[in-house]
Amino acid sequence: MDQFLEYVDKHQNDFVERLRKAVAIPSVSGDPAHRPDVFRMSEFLVQELKALGASVETRDLGKQDWHGQELDLPPIVLATVGNNPEKKTILVYGHYDVQPALLEDGWSTNPFELVEDENNRLIGRGSSDDKGPVLGWINVVEAHKALGLELPVNIKFCLEGMEESGSEGLDALIFDEASKYFKDVDGVCISDNYWLGTTKPCLTYGLRGVSYFHMKVKGPRADLHSGVFGGTVHEPMTDLVAVMSKLVNPDGKILVPGIYEQVRALSPEEEKTYDDLAFQMEELHDAVGNKINIHDTIRKTLQCRWRNPSLSLHGIEGAFYSPGDKTVIPAQVTGKFSIRTVPDMDPKQVSALVVKFCQDEFAKLGSKNTLDVHCTHDGNYWLSSPNHPNYVAAAKAVETVYGVKPDLTREGGSIPVTLSFQDALKKNVLLLPMGRGDDGAHSINEKLDRSNYIKGTQLLGAYLYEVSQVKL
Amino acid sequence: MDQFLEYVDKHQNDFVERLRKAVAIPSVSGDPAHRPDVFRMSEFLVQELKALGASVETRDLGKQDWHGQELDLPPIVLATVGNNPEKKTILVYGHYDVQPALLEDGWSTNPFELVEDENNRLIGRGSSDDKGPVLGWINVVEAHKALGLELPVNIKFCLEGMEESGSEGLDALIFDEASKYFKDVDGVCISDNYWLGTTKPCLTYGLRGVSYFHMKVKGPRADLHSGVFGGTVHEPMTDLVAVMSKLVNPDGKILVPGIYEQVRALSPEEEKTYDDLAFQMEELHDAVGNKINIHDTIRKTLQCRWRNPSLSLHGIEGAFYSPGDKTVIPAQVTGKFSIRTVPDMDPKQVSALVVKFCQDEFAKLGSKNTLDVHCTHDGNYWLSSPNHPNYVAAAKAVETVYGVKPDLTREGGSIPVTLSFQDALKKNVLLLPMGRGDDGAHSINEKLDRSNYIKGTQLLGAYLYEVSQVKL
Repeated sequence: MDQFLEYVDKHQNDFVERLRKAVAIPSVSGDPAHRPDVFRMSEFLVQELKALGASVETRDLGKQDWHGQELDLPPIVLATVGNNPEKKTILVYGHYDVQPALLEDGWSTNPFELVEDENNRLIGRGSSDDKGPVLGWINVVEAHKALGLELPVNIKFCLEGMEESGSEGLDALIFDEASKYFKDVDGVCISDNYWLGTTKPCLTYGLRGVSYFHMKVKGPRADLHSGVFGGTVHEPMTDLVAVMSKLVNPDGKILVPGIYEQVRALSPEEEKTYDDLAFQMEELHDAVGNKINIHDTIRKTLQCRWRNPSLSLHGIEGAFYSPGDKTVIPAQVTGKFSIRTVPDMDPKQVSALVVKFCQDEFAKLGSKNTLDVHCTHDGNYWLSSPNHPNYVAAAKAVETVYGVKPDLTREGGSIPVTLSFQDALKKNVLLLPMGRGDDGAHSINEKLDRSNYIKGTQLLGAYLYEVSQVKL
Repeated sequence: MDQFLEYVDKHQNDFVERLRKAVAIPSVSGDPAHRPDVFRMSEFLVQELKALGASVETRDLGKQDWHGQELDLPPIVLATVGNNPEKKTILVYGHYDVQPALLEDGWSTNPFELVEDENNRLIGRGSSDDKGPVLGWINVVEAHKALGLELPVNIKFCLEGMEESGSEGLDALIFDEASKYFKDVDGVCISDNYWLGTTKPCLTYGLRGVSYFHMKVKGPRADLHSGVFGGTVHEPMTDLVAVMSKLVNPDGKILVPGIYEQVRALSPEEEKTYDDLAFQMEELHDAVGNKINIHDTIRKTLQCRWRNPSLSLHGIEGAFYSPGDKTVIPAQVTGKFSIRTVPDMDPKQVSALVVKFCQDEFAKLGSKNTLDVHCTHDGNYWLSSPNHPNYVAAAKAVETVYGVKPDLTREGGSIPVTLSFQDALKKNVLLLPMGRGDDGAHSINEKLDRSNYIKGTQLLGAYLYEVSQVKL
């Protein structure tokens, strides 16, 4: 391992060049004009992997219906490095597509030209999300090949090109390949999220789920003039706003009965993971751009982000939304809201509780309008454990490379592929981020600090050494 | 007068031909491509009036800024018929522009080609709103000229071409001409609204005002992801919906304290005007397309439309409004609502009560977000009296032509020009409609029943005879 770590450090400029080539391919999956670039990017990875001796296959995912236009979906790149049945097999997932980026959006430099600034930040679209981490794995393979070392584990790559556009076709492929291409996999590692802050690596072991709801109130056949009809008919907006106001209070407390009863109690052990997190309230204020935190401590704030449910009102479809004044009584309005779910909430129960509560509250109004409320989609929470050997291995790797114990974090949002791998393969999944919390993954001037890229490459390699030593 | 009534009846086809010519000019004021047609329509009226011996002037209103494009505003056509200082002078207002109309919108026939169907309905854009009534006045003048009769009063015409597009420039002109062109005016008559139902003429003596409010809640610097921030920050939508839900209850009762204290009590005399109105609950159901009436009687329903205030929630700017699902915490959201005002509500007081109430309710939430609520515009209610000689004269005319006492109605919406004439000229204003409640003025297949056009012409003439006999 020491040889490997030293090699990475010495050859860091080569690795930065590799990242430069990757960033130069504008593989924006959300823009049909860039679809050929997404394919070009898959080809780039195929060539890199083949050059390092990997056996590479691609899986065609067929066509995508893009607003009536038929587009070819970029392939899933599957690659295998090492085939030793004595060794463990680790599946690594990443994505090679990126978010859109235009100089006009406010970038300081051309987003598809990697630039290193005076603070050694590598600026460019995809540097951190997720080309840096994907190349990190490839750098690990290259270092071993160059050193004439065997990898401590077999690696299976699963790289997709549609992550920023809904991961179309990925789930089906994962379940399909679970007993085929992925059948010998012992554990999964995904490097596609971020450190909590900017100073300390973390392992991420939990994600919230989400249940999304549409609540429609229908009244008149068509929009009405409020002068003519105001005060004489039940107005859908009045009813909808009344029910929406009952869902959550201004302190974020969900008012739907039965929700909190499903939430797992905070154990003393879990409570302890919040003791030394490298995150300050100022970082929250910076991210939000205003001091509108509900809770005064980082501990409580992160518990509310990671392990407590929340309910957000997103908006209303069908009501007046433009600038200016319009005296309309909208004929039908659909309130959109969602609940972030956590252990041990059951999406079906959540949906039943919400629907019943909304119906009950609507009935209390005595309105002659009609209500339809239903869950439009739900994704379950995901929870692993920092005590799992996969995580223990990763924690050791962090200590080796960074000399600190990692933060043990969860995230408030969803990364659906995590749950898919866990459900399809029945193996432990580890989220091992490379970039920092301020990388601006979907924003302008996305960056990956040079040290994160290089130490991150070391970390991914060190993890493979450590995980080879544990029982998964 | 009998001669006149008979003449109109005998020459009705000539009058229909005049309407046909007017409808054929697509004077859509809201479409720059049709602006030349609006000018053409003003020219048509100028020629018609001149041919009948009127002295005609036009007033140039200058330019309009239409989304950055400079457009010439169509002129106000001012015309005088008769100049006898012994006679009263009646100002008649109307407009010669129309709403947009396209065959593709669902019209059964070309909207700019007058078609008479088997039920003698004259179908075409502007037939009822407002070319029919404007030509009605001209028909009256023509009949008298043809018969060699003097008009019982002097008439001053004020015809505008921007009514459907905000009446730009009209108010300033009215106030400017009050002591000039309009200085001898004794009373005003506007034929630009509709019967309550479809069977009985009405006189309209009141309109509600409107006070429009924007209530903005600001939180984070930019939209946030609900996965990352849900449960940790005060969300502007939660706060806004909470305050909006406090404004009005599902039965239409305004919850802002102090509003109802300003509303004039219903006198027994006013109560009696609701006794014999030609309107059925079924007509409300048809108009609304659903049985969502708050009140079970026409009496109470029309009182709520005409003489009680109402509060409607129109929508929210800044929130998610598209189809589909989006897990956004909107950074700033602006609720739009308005209050329809009635005697004796004072817009300034209404605004002060609403602002204070919203601020108080927002303060109760304990949110760290900020609230800004203000009135964006207000227009006062308008109230005349059915006992005014101008109305008594019109009621007699209705009895002469239709053989019934007119309904005495008010309307729930605003017609700002009514108040402008009253305020500028300090003279009584009468609303004397020609068309029926189902004419579909701003809708597809707009029509004016032949009988309404012809009897309406008789009514306008008969009114001039009656009003010449009273003291204004």
